[in-house]
Amino acid sequence: MEWVLTATGRSPTNIAVIKYWGKRDEALILPVNDSISVTLDPDHLSATTTVAVSPSFDRDRMWLNGNEISLSGGRFQSCLREIRKRAGDVKDEKKGVHIGKEDWEKLHVHIVSYNNFPTAAGLASSAAGFACLVFTLAKLMNVSENEAALSSIARQGSGSACRSLYGGFVKWVKGEEANGSDSGAVQLVDESYWSDLVVIIAVVSSRQKETSSTSGMRDSVLTSALLQHRAEIIVPKRIRQMEEAIKNRDFGSFASLACADSNQFHAICLDTTPPIFYMNDTSHRIINMVERWRQFEGAPQVAYTFDAGPNAVLIAPNRKVAASLLQRLLFFFPPTPETKLESYIVGETSILQEAGVQAAKDLDSLPLPSEVKDKNNVQKYPGSISYFICTSPGKGPILLSEEHSLVNPATGLPFK
Amino acid sequence: MEWVLTATGRSPTNIAVIKYWGKRDEALILPVNDSISVTLDPDHLSATTTVAVSPSFDRDRMWLNGNEISLSGGRFQSCLREIRKRAGDVKDEKKGVHIGKEDWEKLHVHIVSYNNFPTAAGLASSAAGFACLVFTLAKLMNVSENEAALSSIARQGSGSACRSLYGGFVKWVKGEEANGSDSGAVQLVDESYWSDLVVIIAVVSSRQKETSSTSGMRDSVLTSALLQHRAEIIVPKRIRQMEEAIKNRDFGSFASLACADSNQFHAICLDTTPPIFYMNDTSHRIINMVERWRQFEGAPQVAYTFDAGPNAVLIAPNRKVAASLLQRLLFFFPPTPETKLESYIVGETSILQEAGVQAAKDLDSLPLPSEVKDKNNVQKYPGSISYFICTSPGKGPILLSEEHSLVNPATGLPFK
Repeated sequence: MEWVLTATGRSPTNIAVIKYWGKRDEALILPVNDSISVTLDPDHLSATTTVAVSPSFDRDRMWLNGNEISLSGGRFQSCLREIRKRAGDVKDEKKGVHIGKEDWEKLHVHIVSYNNFPTAAGLASSAAGFACLVFTLAKLMNVSENEAALSSIARQGSGSACRSLYGGFVKWVKGEEANGSDSGAVQLVDESYWSDLVVIIAVVSSRQKETSSTSGMRDSVLTSALLQHRAEIIVPKRIRQMEEAIKNRDFGSFASLACADSNQFHAICLDTTPPIFYMNDTSHRIINMVERWRQFEGAPQVAYTFDAGPNAVLIAPNRKVAASLLQRLLFFFPPTPETKLESYIVGETSILQEAGVQAAKDLDSLPLPSEVKDKNNVQKYPGSISYFICTSPGKGPILLSEEHSLVNPATGLPFK
Repeated sequence: MEWVLTATGRSPTNIAVIKYWGKRDEALILPVNDSISVTLDPDHLSATTTVAVSPSFDRDRMWLNGNEISLSGGRFQSCLREIRKRAGDVKDEKKGVHIGKEDWEKLHVHIVSYNNFPTAAGLASSAAGFACLVFTLAKLMNVSENEAALSSIARQGSGSACRSLYGGFVKWVKGEEANGSDSGAVQLVDESYWSDLVVIIAVVSSRQKETSSTSGMRDSVLTSALLQHRAEIIVPKRIRQMEEAIKNRDFGSFASLACADSNQFHAICLDTTPPIFYMNDTSHRIINMVERWRQFEGAPQVAYTFDAGPNAVLIAPNRKVAASLLQRLLFFFPPTPETKLESYIVGETSILQEAGVQAAKDLDSLPLPSEVKDKNNVQKYPGSISYFICTSPGKGPILLSEEHSLVNPATGLPFK
């Protein structure tokens, strides 16, 4: 075994508040409209990736969440090719490593990646994953390009991955060039700009096999009679309004726009042939809960947004409202009796205290939400949510120290 | 008690295959787009209404399904006013009745109406009801106007009622006049033109309180960013295509258009603030079942369409396909063990024989649908459908003989 050189990075996931749905170029992953997202705290939702290079490696290989996966897909190949093309000279005197930029074409890499959240939960794991792959490969290969260029490369792995190259609020500019060179993300504001926001994700139980977003958006582009109108007329206006709302930390406008755009994205899915249903009855009940609360208070209390699955991402303006939201969620969607509280609410769980819930028994004494009209006929839905993740807006990708490496330097393979 | 003169009529309900959603005038009930419907067989889904007049009546009164209801609503008043305005002379020598057309303004009516299907099932009972009210009032009052004029009056009771004045396939022309005079229905073809069609309605179990279509479409007009585009650009084209499909009895085009337009109507509901969910998980599963079947066969097998509720209206091109459809429905959505077969499938139940189901035990030996891919992992949903109604396209309103009267001539009140 010759030397093994590694780099390890961690990248966040993100959730769109103005949605990306529809490609104008399938191969280059160029979208039909701009989108805006908020990056989520990598402590709770992120991918960690180690990329290793060694003259001993005879081919590129990758392990995801402990299982080796094929790198033959065009999306992985695009990212590897684009980064290799831009690789620089790398020297590590201690290890006696001298790699000229022309050498990278002949060297192979081992990639090991983990998500700190269940992939199956449908929480944009590919966004975090491809952002992390591109970011970490670029570090290993001493690519001098800025984040904008890396964002554009990550886009070719998974569209929404381009937005995970930055923290805070991020806009993916669709661009105009046919080769996609101007299609990538820019940061609108960093994660400290609107730091009061609290995010609660409801991971909804579902047995339904979902349509992949790749094939779903292809079908929508081909068959939805409404998609083009949305992309050309409605989204450009909403993008401007959303940028303004974020700049002014105007939560009312932010929430109205985010909810309307999430619903419109799902409307486009429904307008597709065959129709795509990502939200289920539980998703609808969460929306109805939020809407009734809003109507009672006369102003938006929290925003909701749903990606290509039934999970709700709920955004509260501050911890106080987030605690009220969590009370409501636990009131209407309690755990089943056999579920432990600590596995039902994960992430930044300190918000539980503010919600007055310290132990499972406290769930029985949650206050009746003020907006409930018929106190004698309250419908609850135990077991319809798998668990909640409490988190907040977060930062972009970071490089981790060697102690976080997922590759055993003695073997070049993942640690067992 | 002086003389009581009665007329009794029966009117069908109808289901839109190009949807009406959105009014341009709330008071006159003028729609934002044309719509096309198929009238359903009144034997299975209709309203029967007796209108009685007597000098003994001191005010207008109405009983619906056995309960007296208020006639003070603007919609009843519009229909009564418009018909009274057009009333003619009526003579019944046997009863010694002489009513001059000018007398109708001073005479009061008693209206008794029944639906032969559950109102709560959300099956356009108001369409049948208002069509029947207007049709029967017009008969009693010897109104000489043609069906087109009556259709325009029924429209002011409930928009879709204007389409229930005819059998077969019916188009509601939105009209251009501000006073609504040119907004009413015309018959495209009568019920004998495409008589092979079979309709199966799945009445879906639901505890959810639904948004009324009146308030729902008001919200959509005010808030949906997509509705205007649908009404102005998409529907006019679909109306032309649907007329062509009906004229040619082209079931493939008919089904594709009907399904797409049902889905787009629900997409507009979802694009409304707050979003409106009429379909639930069971509705989605019925659609997925139909779409998988279509994909397996490579062509549309049956059409589905959903109104403002979770119930599915499924249209098969002929009895053979309808039998296959019923097999599939009973396979995936069996009754609960305590449900009797004869209360689970009602209406034109002879189709059951062709589906090979003569007794409840036959439900266990229904064939596995050919399109099922994973035979070891079939998901069934017992109890998620209340019952099925088997029916077909049907005729328009008819006058019934006196023996069908719902009013006791001795009292002027409903028979007990």
